[in-house]
Amino acid sequence: MKTNVKFYHAGCPVCEEANSELAAALDPARFAVEVVHLGRVPERIREAEAAGVKSVPALVMQGRVFHVNHGAALSDLKR
Amino acid sequence: MKTNVKFYHAGCPVCEEANSELAAALDPARFAVEVVHLGRVPERIREAEAAGVKSVPALVMQGRVFHVNHGAALSDLKR
Repeated sequence: MKTNVKFYHAGCPVCEEANSELAAALDPARFAVEVVHLGRVPERIREAEAAGVKSVPALVMQGRVFHVNHGAALSDLKR
Repeated sequence: MKTNVKFYHAGCPVCEEANSELAAALDPARFAVEVVHLGRVPERIREAEAAGVKSVPALVMQGRVFHVNHGAALSDLKR
């Protein structure tokens, strides 16, 4: 069974780069990556926060949060 | 041919987590990951800097730098 990974982003250039280069580089044999665009589904911001996400882009895997560079703070997405 | 990726770290807990969870999650069919412990090979700090690394842990892939969370600034490793 594959491990679920969530990649949260907001469509910013920093996010897109992390998506196309890093999230897409994960081993598809072991990981199922769900890409969540918080600008389009702001109702999932709370879920990201609960997972410990402070800024995007961020990868959440196995309960751990990896903030990748810095595109936008999660708080900025709520405005 | 596999794409070379460098994972720079300094042995800190934040680094170790990123190494075991994220760097190890990359697709081995497409990427060859070299793990570089800058605390042990400080002579490679310059190489990391030249690639654009500001802090560790960081992944360098295809000319792009992905700073992952924040373990230590590169400048702190030179002291």
